[in-house]
Amino acid sequence: MKVGIDALAFDIPKIYLPIETLAINRNIEPDKLTKGLGLLRMSCPDVHQDAVVLAANALWKLIENEKLDPRNIGRIYIGTESSVDAAKPIATYLIEILEEKLKAQYGEDSLNRCDALDMTFACIGGVDALQIMLDWVRVNPEKQGIVICSDIAKYDLGSGGEYTQGAGAVALLIKSEPRLLSFEKEVGVSTQGVFDFFKPRRFFDKKEITQQAGNPVWMGVEEEEVEIFKEQPIFDGQYSNQCYQDRVKEAYQHFKEITNTTDALFDRWQSILMHLPYAFQGRRMFPEIYALENKIELPELPEEYTQKLKEVAKSEGYRKFVADKLAPAEIASSNVGNIYTGSIFLGMISMLCHAAENHIEITDTKLGFISYGSGSKSKVFEATVEQNWKATLQKVSLDTILKKTEAITMETYTNLHKKMQKESIIQPKGEFILTGIEKENPLKLGARYYKWVE
Amino acid sequence: MKVGIDALAFDIPKIYLPIETLAINRNIEPDKLTKGLGLLRMSCPDVHQDAVVLAANALWKLIENEKLDPRNIGRIYIGTESSVDAAKPIATYLIEILEEKLKAQYGEDSLNRCDALDMTFACIGGVDALQIMLDWVRVNPEKQGIVICSDIAKYDLGSGGEYTQGAGAVALLIKSEPRLLSFEKEVGVSTQGVFDFFKPRRFFDKKEITQQAGNPVWMGVEEEEVEIFKEQPIFDGQYSNQCYQDRVKEAYQHFKEITNTTDALFDRWQSILMHLPYAFQGRRMFPEIYALENKIELPELPEEYTQKLKEVAKSEGYRKFVADKLAPAEIASSNVGNIYTGSIFLGMISMLCHAAENHIEITDTKLGFISYGSGSKSKVFEATVEQNWKATLQKVSLDTILKKTEAITMETYTNLHKKMQKESIIQPKGEFILTGIEKENPLKLGARYYKWVE
Repeated sequence: MKVGIDALAFDIPKIYLPIETLAINRNIEPDKLTKGLGLLRMSCPDVHQDAVVLAANALWKLIENEKLDPRNIGRIYIGTESSVDAAKPIATYLIEILEEKLKAQYGEDSLNRCDALDMTFACIGGVDALQIMLDWVRVNPEKQGIVICSDIAKYDLGSGGEYTQGAGAVALLIKSEPRLLSFEKEVGVSTQGVFDFFKPRRFFDKKEITQQAGNPVWMGVEEEEVEIFKEQPIFDGQYSNQCYQDRVKEAYQHFKEITNTTDALFDRWQSILMHLPYAFQGRRMFPEIYALENKIELPELPEEYTQKLKEVAKSEGYRKFVADKLAPAEIASSNVGNIYTGSIFLGMISMLCHAAENHIEITDTKLGFISYGSGSKSKVFEATVEQNWKATLQKVSLDTILKKTEAITMETYTNLHKKMQKESIIQPKGEFILTGIEKENPLKLGARYYKWVE
Repeated sequence: MKVGIDALAFDIPKIYLPIETLAINRNIEPDKLTKGLGLLRMSCPDVHQDAVVLAANALWKLIENEKLDPRNIGRIYIGTESSVDAAKPIATYLIEILEEKLKAQYGEDSLNRCDALDMTFACIGGVDALQIMLDWVRVNPEKQGIVICSDIAKYDLGSGGEYTQGAGAVALLIKSEPRLLSFEKEVGVSTQGVFDFFKPRRFFDKKEITQQAGNPVWMGVEEEEVEIFKEQPIFDGQYSNQCYQDRVKEAYQHFKEITNTTDALFDRWQSILMHLPYAFQGRRMFPEIYALENKIELPELPEEYTQKLKEVAKSEGYRKFVADKLAPAEIASSNVGNIYTGSIFLGMISMLCHAAENHIEITDTKLGFISYGSGSKSKVFEATVEQNWKATLQKVSLDTILKKTEAITMETYTNLHKKMQKESIIQPKGEFILTGIEKENPLKLGARYYKWVE
């Protein structure tokens, strides 16, 4: 029995900052970002959007496109690092929002028997959710579930991560005998506990804030310490690249071992789908594996080793390899930016749309997935393209969605970033929105409210 | 093939506040808490403990007791609502800490091929992790994984939830042909998106805090809004009880449907293991199902309905039912308090230890699991006690662990709660501890450091 992705949908904000605008304002040579990193646009969440809204809209598109009966959705599992609560999962917000929308057609509580859950491991949490769902369908072949990756990648203004921002959600329908992609159960894994990128709370002595001794209650905080949360991560870019490269290499090696592969593994892959925090991250990180698989000798001294990899990266062979296996997945990333957990799947959509548009026949070919999550873990696995892939894909128009987005100015971007913008930039239409956060009722303080806008 | 729990371990803090002390200091009649809710002690995390430490110590006990080779642990999946980071899972901290401890015996990176992940759905996230792990073993019968539930239940001083605090972690070894319990794959589910209990961030206008116009940067926050995090939840106790009761009833009904059970389902269960935020929550919430299963007629008018359920609760039949099916699981809860995700499994340990101590032969009997997580979801499922249950359990001495704990005073409790206590109350020995949180290095701000203390 085959199990895998039967259909999919995605949602991104309707506004973006052109990378050139950002580059000029930060005194960065635009070519460094556009040609060097492959960046063109950065999706920016509008005032009425958060990770719940993006997830709900991706989920709604999937339900509508595929005419899914909610009573037949057995699971909705989320991969995210943009959760809005430490206990209540985004999945429960989706149940509430969707049931309201589906009420007229299916009555109250149409998702009452749907199991809902969030999982977190930086950018790899969505891949974990996918694999968990695949196992569940393997055990229960008559069931179907939905995996959603939803995130907002926000970095400090002027920081080294600023140009790798973005926002978006991907929803995947997982079932047996899928029309799009089927997955084998083998997974190569590499894990190491590190601090390359994380989202801790910031601890401050209350005295520092209040300038008062004796620990008076402040903003409801009884503790001598105040914990402030920022969406923006703490990260070490260079170190994180090294972790990415090491984990990926180890997971790739592990996958080769468990599948008894002695030849170059990637040779059997039509395309390689990697986690892309920026469009060219994959091609930047892959020369080492490329060299090892092609038995290119690598010097032992660290400096010479790095130098040799740079040469490999510039070689004609590697350039052709990039154009063939990696470039089709980069297109969407260049135009959307970093969407954390969804990035690898956005790359997958990009590659599939590219094949469909260019009439490349990929039925029965294999795709290699190379995922990464900071903290850190990589998983390597593969899928086979099923024969109805093109028909399923027709409802997912990457091009159409990108054409509907509008550029914003640096000023608008800055105001959105600082949460000084209070009115939506683009009036929402035919989508779910965030309407507010409870600030009065002590029993619901912090509760988030959503609605559908016709 | 059978799959289930092969072995287990747990860890709780070594200090507790006697409930009587709390009652007296809050002007509550002690009997109301002890006899009314079944509370005796409330575990309090010491200065050197957080959810990572509790998880690490439970995991370490399991590895040591069962002499597990870390290279054969395929997965470590965590259920928690006490995460210390929005992106980096507790599971990665465990990988780091354990590898360091295991280095002498197994070399570096002994858990490099172990898949690690956190999942969140209030108190039911650990049950979700268990079921995910069971499916994974069903698909990969040669593999074994560990599920850990770790939480610290903290409520505001003087609040209605204060006496339902606690802290602890449970680690479960999941494999095929398990020695302790095997699980069927059927699961009854009920989900509804509600705000009965959640842990949102608190939003404040920066102006309110700084008393300055113009949105100046404050404590690193560029946004006009400041997000403050508190471990303490926002909750509505009475409403949450109603959600618990409704979800549990619906999931129970769902389980009966999918297993084609027409008779009283609980009649076939030796014991019932429920989520216990306080010891007597299960027996308080169960009269409705008890009445329905025993075909006791319930009036339609809400007030009369509630009145009738109160009568049922006081009936001799129900008291006997509680003593037989629910009471053995309550013992540990009375002595430890609320440990959120781990509560249902602590109840399971309690019930199993009770059977072993009282020489009750339970091999081949069925246990009913009735879980609940606010937000809200219930799952109902069942397990069969395997023939080696007693041998496995011998290494888990609930009694011994409880006897090693010490009472603290109200003053110490208050200082710990307010984080004004800086020195450990009990000097740690033979366990992992938190040594500090990074406050200087901007690339690692908020990173948490742990070590083993001989």
